[in-house]
Amino acid sequence: MNYRSVGVDIEKGDRIVDRVKEMMGAAGAQIGHFGGAIPIPTDRYKKPLLVSSIDSVGTKVMVATAVGTHKKLGYDIVHHCINDIVCCGAEPIAFLDYIAMSALDEKVVTEAIEGIIGACQGWNVTLVGGETAEMPGTYLSGEYDLVGSISGLVDQDEFIDGKSILPGDVLVGFGSNGLHTNGYSLARKVCEPLGYSTVLPELDGTIGDALLKPHRCYLGEIRELKRLNVIKGLAHITGGGLLGNVTRIIPKGLTVNINWGCWSEPPIFTLIQKEGNVSEEDMRPAFNLGIGFVAVMTPENAQRVLNEFPDSLESPIKIGQVA
Amino acid sequence: MNYRSVGVDIEKGDRIVDRVKEMMGAAGAQIGHFGGAIPIPTDRYKKPLLVSSIDSVGTKVMVATAVGTHKKLGYDIVHHCINDIVCCGAEPIAFLDYIAMSALDEKVVTEAIEGIIGACQGWNVTLVGGETAEMPGTYLSGEYDLVGSISGLVDQDEFIDGKSILPGDVLVGFGSNGLHTNGYSLARKVCEPLGYSTVLPELDGTIGDALLKPHRCYLGEIRELKRLNVIKGLAHITGGGLLGNVTRIIPKGLTVNINWGCWSEPPIFTLIQKEGNVSEEDMRPAFNLGIGFVAVMTPENAQRVLNEFPDSLESPIKIGQVA
Repeated sequence: MNYRSVGVDIEKGDRIVDRVKEMMGAAGAQIGHFGGAIPIPTDRYKKPLLVSSIDSVGTKVMVATAVGTHKKLGYDIVHHCINDIVCCGAEPIAFLDYIAMSALDEKVVTEAIEGIIGACQGWNVTLVGGETAEMPGTYLSGEYDLVGSISGLVDQDEFIDGKSILPGDVLVGFGSNGLHTNGYSLARKVCEPLGYSTVLPELDGTIGDALLKPHRCYLGEIRELKRLNVIKGLAHITGGGLLGNVTRIIPKGLTVNINWGCWSEPPIFTLIQKEGNVSEEDMRPAFNLGIGFVAVMTPENAQRVLNEFPDSLESPIKIGQVA
Repeated sequence: MNYRSVGVDIEKGDRIVDRVKEMMGAAGAQIGHFGGAIPIPTDRYKKPLLVSSIDSVGTKVMVATAVGTHKKLGYDIVHHCINDIVCCGAEPIAFLDYIAMSALDEKVVTEAIEGIIGACQGWNVTLVGGETAEMPGTYLSGEYDLVGSISGLVDQDEFIDGKSILPGDVLVGFGSNGLHTNGYSLARKVCEPLGYSTVLPELDGTIGDALLKPHRCYLGEIRELKRLNVIKGLAHITGGGLLGNVTRIIPKGLTVNINWGCWSEPPIFTLIQKEGNVSEEDMRPAFNLGIGFVAVMTPENAQRVLNEFPDSLESPIKIGQVA
């Protein structure tokens, strides 16, 4: 008996890992050792805090597998992780990926890594390492999981925790371009029978393309809000939806009123709700419904942001209030 | 249609996440926000480097599932990640976990987290966050994946990269207590038919217990070697075995001669080799074969380490030489 006879092809694994290292090396990543290392720019911080997060793209991988394209998922996981630590005011510096599947698939791995490298380069985050795992018997045949872990820095004085939020403060939202990385177990149930390659005029393309739009990264918008010095709290709208995530950063005893319907929802949500006969009550915790990120600030600052925000960034929208 | 009707039980998920947060809170972890934050002790470093790594326990999860015990896997993933960044000379500071499965299982999640918390507390690493994911359709029923990501710090002047290694330098090994987290696809194929609950005298217990011994953490040994100022290179013996991993840190053009058989192998390896009729050639890249960590140093320093090493730590063994 040996490794190959039990379904693990070490040579193939090595070949894929070599290809990944080559891609990472060409992108300037630090690789080959057991842990990736990058300098901490201590001169830029008085009391630096290390902020870290880990997450996956969830069952969005199953849509990517059905459609046969994986690069966008690389953008998804990097942008998702950046958005998570941006909520504390952190600047991302280092990213790690983990891809696991039943049998290593070179196309899946290289496409996903290509997207990860593109997203890391786009936001000046160093891809410090990663792991590719072959786990027959754990993953269903043809399926995989894509996990990312990110580290960033923020000065202790500039750490954002929502503690100063008061009743009357305004929720300023930034639009999403679709589901981002949440709600796919429900969305797949509705959309799979319709066919991912089905073209619908309201989607301006196929259902698959609408579902696979990469998670937006809000680092540019948040840097601008930091520059304007207006932020009281930040929430990345992921699983749990608008209410679930904004509630996480609001001080105990306070609540939020959302002006549902005051922004335009991407049409994929309308499609899911109609075709799946999903109640509004069930839609709200399952999906971001068109708002991917929320910043809380005073009404005066919200007005200033709405007036002054640069056209090159996502437009801020007043979507509700703290009560 | 709603989330529950497509197989995702949000309330159950929330309940498990609440239980995990409670456990983490009781252990002093930083939780509840989108990213976990900890201070960087800049006063201890001249030019701090951030060293990060990500990995999983591989198909060891399948043995844990078959035996029905998951706590030790928590120790495995933390110790594995610590050993990885220790290779650069880094001190671990922050850990993140990711657990994903087809349907959330409270016993699996809480036992694994219990082990993770125990291991983090044991080595003074802050558990800054984690993610628990339910992915029906990706994972096989009853199976799960356990991923960990770690960050640590090392001063630039003390970064260990193996570049000063020369022919004649000695490989000093530290014993493993079993497979640690590598070789389980092959080991399971051999051991499953024998029965994980089978007691064998040479194992001093069941086959399952021998396979589930938690990955040893070598941070104590490496701290002592750092104190003695003898380290030229460090290798964590994982997938690829002794040769595969030591070769990663040896300068190009050099090679290593291992004195195979000069240390005592844990009996689980003899069992796998005999029962599975696995050739020595196939055993060596699949398993650590009794050496979990290797430090490279001059012959003089190796002798000093062998003479002076404290009894409270794993005994160093001279296992080979650079050529």
